[in-house]
Amino acid sequence: MQIDIMTLFPEMFDGVLNHSIMKRAQDREAFHYNYINFREFTTNKHNKVDDYPYGGGAGLVLTPQPIFDAVEDIHRKSVTKPRVILMCPQGEPYTQKKAEELAEEEHLVFICGHYEGYDERIRQELVTDEISIGDYVLTGGELGAMVVMDSVIRLLPGVLGNEQSAPEDSFSNGLLEHPHYTRPADFRGKEVPEVLLSGNHARIDEWRHYQSLKRTYERRPDLLQNRELTEQEKVWLQEWENQ
Amino acid sequence: MQIDIMTLFPEMFDGVLNHSIMKRAQDREAFHYNYINFREFTTNKHNKVDDYPYGGGAGLVLTPQPIFDAVEDIHRKSVTKPRVILMCPQGEPYTQKKAEELAEEEHLVFICGHYEGYDERIRQELVTDEISIGDYVLTGGELGAMVVMDSVIRLLPGVLGNEQSAPEDSFSNGLLEHPHYTRPADFRGKEVPEVLLSGNHARIDEWRHYQSLKRTYERRPDLLQNRELTEQEKVWLQEWENQ
Repeated sequence: MQIDIMTLFPEMFDGVLNHSIMKRAQDREAFHYNYINFREFTTNKHNKVDDYPYGGGAGLVLTPQPIFDAVEDIHRKSVTKPRVILMCPQGEPYTQKKAEELAEEEHLVFICGHYEGYDERIRQELVTDEISIGDYVLTGGELGAMVVMDSVIRLLPGVLGNEQSAPEDSFSNGLLEHPHYTRPADFRGKEVPEVLLSGNHARIDEWRHYQSLKRTYERRPDLLQNRELTEQEKVWLQEWENQ
Repeated sequence: MQIDIMTLFPEMFDGVLNHSIMKRAQDREAFHYNYINFREFTTNKHNKVDDYPYGGGAGLVLTPQPIFDAVEDIHRKSVTKPRVILMCPQGEPYTQKKAEELAEEEHLVFICGHYEGYDERIRQELVTDEISIGDYVLTGGELGAMVVMDSVIRLLPGVLGNEQSAPEDSFSNGLLEHPHYTRPADFRGKEVPEVLLSGNHARIDEWRHYQSLKRTYERRPDLLQNRELTEQEKVWLQEWENQ
């Protein structure tokens, strides 16, 4: 996968992209990345990439010209048709399903604004996806792009080893993950649930399923709204509703 | 504000913490941070901090001992009572309201797991807040902690200058932000809406309010569910419903 990161602050990415799984993914050639500082594309004689908003108001707005020229340069050099992703609070809420969709692509381009808003014409003309990683305000799109990259890259073939493999990840089956316990069996008087030490895998699976559903019911009932419940799940939910 | 970051990968944070607004916030002494590599607290003779899960399954689980000892060390050295935040997909969904709440604190501690799950006893005994930045799976809690830090630190007094001030940020008034436009008024035949060039600030404010509500209605109707609508907003919404 090729990833082009359009940003005024490429140094922000280095620590995240060059350690741990992201580093390993590059060593295994699962992806390559490239920084594009779109300031290099501005035709403004003072090298400016932003300007005051029409109609007044606080804050600056990224002008269309440098970003149009930078994206068109990518298109010219690319044999693939990239997804051009604008990181912004007005975008579609990012989900695991979207991560899985993006992991199928060959080429992603991230446009990261910083403090400023984007001129609306960038949104209208250049962008294939607008993504928001959550309902909170960040100083720029850079952290959002890193979050999307991390969640996508870990899904690429060969990136995760067994020790990190994640068949029971939260969200991948629509429920929050069940509790985990490891050694010691007794830590300062707090004991591991007996069932986990039983060696009875049918009972363990049932306990985990129950705990996973219960945690979701208690913390994130919104995740259950569109779920097709099994008969067992209906019984458990009824039990909790009655309490 | 004091921020302690408990992580096995401190290098991941450097680029984000030492550029742009986060850098400036430190220069202005709005916050100080400190890395705690909890591997230094393990009593395991092979320096391990994780182990196989009881009951079987893929993935490793962070053992309680190093994290308990590291958090207790923080408590011992601290005059304030820190918020101890576990970054995890099972946590409460992070919001701007939570950012505003955390910005009032004097001392935050972030616990960042990496690939592994957390032993449940860490959750039960040590943690004041479990936070999820969104419904997607990341390779670790580090990026989540950076997201929370960025959103909190930009709210601290004196951190944002006028050029980044954000009274009309998405979410801070419950709606998505309206479109922005800057120069040129005509970019490749795409023109800025006439109202923004009119100089009539009452009309501009109304246009922005209308666009902001409309974008929210089209993209994120969930944000309108608990909103107290003005009479004008009710009229607009009715108009769109009828279309």
